[in-house]
Order: sequence, then structure tokens, then C-alpha cells
Amino acid sequence: MPQLVLLRHGQSVWNRDDRFTGWTDVDLTPQGVEEAHRAAALLAGHDLGIDVCFTSLLTRAIRTLWVVLDDMRAMWLPVERHWRLNERHYGALQGLNKAEMREKAGAEQVHAWRRGFAVRPPALDEENETWPGYDRRYAGVPKAQLPRTESLADTVARVLPYWFMRIEPALMQGSTPLVVAHGNSLRGLIKHLDGIPDDDISGLEIPTGAPLLYEFDDSLKPRRSRYLD
Amino acid sequence: MPQLVLLRHGQSVWNRDDRFTGWTDVDLTPQGVEEAHRAAALLAGHDLGIDVCFTSLLTRAIRTLWVVLDDMRAMWLPVERHWRLNERHYGALQGLNKAEMREKAGAEQVHAWRRGFAVRPPALDEENETWPGYDRRYAGVPKAQLPRTESLADTVARVLPYWFMRIEPALMQGSTPLVVAHGNSLRGLIKHLDGIPDDDISGLEIPTGAPLLYEFDDSLKPRRSRYLD
Repeated sequence: MPQLVLLRHGQSVWNRDDRFTGWTDVDLTPQGVEEAHRAAALLAGHDLGIDVCFTSLLTRAIRTLWVVLDDMRAMWLPVERHWRLNERHYGALQGLNKAEMREKAGAEQVHAWRRGFAVRPPALDEENETWPGYDRRYAGVPKAQLPRTESLADTVARVLPYWFMRIEPALMQGSTPLVVAHGNSLRGLIKHLDGIPDDDISGLEIPTGAPLLYEFDDSLKPRRSRYLD
Repeated sequence: MPQLVLLRHGQSVWNRDDRFTGWTDVDLTPQGVEEAHRAAALLAGHDLGIDVCFTSLLTRAIRTLWVVLDDMRAMWLPVERHWRLNERHYGALQGLNKAEMREKAGAEQVHAWRRGFAVRPPALDEENETWPGYDRRYAGVPKAQLPRTESLADTVARVLPYWFMRIEPALMQGSTPLVVAHGNSLRGLIKHLDGIPDDDISGLEIPTGAPLLYEFDDSLKPRRSRYLD
């Protein structure tokens, strides 16, 4: 039976500080590292035969994966990193404190930015030094593809090609992938796998450091999913 | 100008204990981790533009690479792991203390095993539980390819296809690779790059944790190499 594990990275510094993070490359907090150790223990307790790993280009996801691989004595597993698994790009909101934003722009506007499926926050200027086009890690990505802001719909649209071209083929070949990614890139995968409507997906909360196991039938239709315990 | 860095992993537990290690998956000592930090500092001081990493399937090499990537804030760099970059397989000698072996088999025999280019130590039995065929990490390798022992000549012969098929093409495409591997797999690469005769290569000592920079001309002929300082 084909299987797959999705894992959201542990708590990051800006999760803790309640700031819009997006593509900003903040690291895990000590609690986030602890969550990764717990995820490793849960995974090790289930002997799933994970044999390939996918993650984003962001440190908090990669470090979560490293802690898991180290604890499982599986540092030798192949790992593919890709920008399409990155967190949703939060545009000009990145770095701002959520409470401050609510005061400035109003709770309703902030709620729309966070929860409206097709709502984009204000875009980053391409002259802004935090635009991904200035970051060497995205040098291989066509500039026109690099976001200046994203709605959740945009994030879903750029995650799915990676699912179809890299993760699903691995499943088809009999592999058991571990995907370590972010709240919104994982929402994109789960929306596709479970057929969740546009209006419902942003309300889906994915806990940090909780391995989510999907089981598929031989046609790769998801049969069930559950958080490991 | 095409460039490449070769790096031997830091001191491992069995380096320290003077035991034949080979494919045994021992970790770094604290000193070995420290050596990796120093290698990272040397690399960071040279701004080489490393953009792809190659390593073996053995923890001591991968951990050395992880320390380097973490310190360089470059955990996002692509990493390819491959068994062909593993250390020389030392056959039935793996795990034995070198001093004990000299007492048992004589210093001359041990010297021949260690330094004779085409001399193979006694082979591991395929029933032996340490034979790589029982290790999940080598499940994708044809059993007939998995060594039961290797001479340095054997190691060179299995490393070079990886050089030709993965590392050299990366150089040709303008990448600057970092290769983190082992004393004997690196001897294999250096033998090829510098045209070192069979009888001389086993005497070449490669220090642990010392980044070795190669510069090539446009035909990929090595122009010079030096340890970074």
C-alpha cells in the first residue's frame, strides 16, 4: 500500500513572535527543535520504510528534516529541496507583527489576507532587498516565476506541479516519501489530496511537528490519513 | 574558471581508536565536528560560490557536510549522496584495531593491505551481518556491485564513474561543487585529477577537515590545487 508522510516544520522564531514569515529564512526556536525530535520518535515508532525526502529551500524546514534524519539514523536518505515547497510568500507583510498589522490595517483586512483563498497581500517591490530575485538560492528559478506576493490559491498552484512531477512519481515507483514543508505549502497538498473546497482550506490547521500519514490505494487515490501517535 | 573543493570528513570515532573503519557507519568525534567548523570558516572566507554538494552514504561525511552548510547559512544547497563516494571497503578487517592486526598478521602484511595499490584484505562473507547487502541504504545497488572487500585500485575504479557521470558534468555546466568524502575515495579522485601513478597514490596523505581547492582550465584540465588557509 503506497504511503506518504507530511510534516510541518517545528516552531520558528517568527511563529513564536507572531510575525508574518513567508519566505524570510528564520530558524527554529529551541521548542521547534524539540518538536522535530518528537516527530522523529513518532516516525521511528512506526517503521514506515521512508526512503526519500522532499523539503523546501528554507532553513526551518531543512533543519526539522535534519533532526528527524539524525534521530532515525537515516542521514543517508536522499533529500530533494525545492522552492515550490516553500511557505506562501506574504509580500510586503513579511516581517510585520500580526497584532501591529491588525491595529494598522484593521482586523478584517488582516483576516482577509490570512484567510481569503484568492486574496493577495500588498506585493513586494522588486527593488526591495528581500525580493527572492536577490537571493542566490533562487538563482535557478526564472525571475518571472519568483513571487512578490501570493494568495493561498497562488501557493497551491505553484506547489502542485512539484507534487505531480516529483512526489507522485516517487509514490508510483514504490517509494515512501517524507515531505517536510510549511503550513501553506502543505495546505496545498492536502487540498489536492482530500479535495477540500477553496473556501474551506484556509481554515485547516496543520500542527507543527506532527507527522501526518497518508495511505493510498494502488491508483494513488488517498484512502485515509491520520496524525501518528 | 571552473573550481571544485574536496573535503575529507573530520575525525571519526574509529579514526581516533585506530580501527579499520571502511563502510562501518561510525560518527564524528567532538574533535571531528570541530574540524568541520574550521573547514566551514575557511570555505566562508573564500567566497567560492559553491552551489552543489556531493557526499557518500556514510554519517561521518554527511555530518561534516551538514556542519559546513549550517555554518555557511547554505542548508538550501542541493546535496547528492552516493555509495560510490564511500570509503574503501576494508573487508574482514573492518572493526579491528590496527595495532592488534599488526601483532596477529605481522606489520608487513598490514602495511601491504593498507598501502599496496591492488592488495585486497580478506573478504567479508556474504552471511556476515555487516555485509552491505543487508543494509537498507544500499537497497538500490545491484548486489553484485556491493563490495565484500576492496583494494585501493577497486575503490578508484568504483569512484571514477561517479566523477565522470555526476561531478564533471556539474563542473562543465558552470557549477562549483563541494565533495565531502573519505581518505580513499578522495585518493581516487586526486589520482585521476593529478595523474598520480599507482605506486604513489597510497602514500598521499589527505588531512581531515582541510578544504582542497582545484582550479581547472576551460577544457577541465586541472591547473592547480591548494589547501585553503
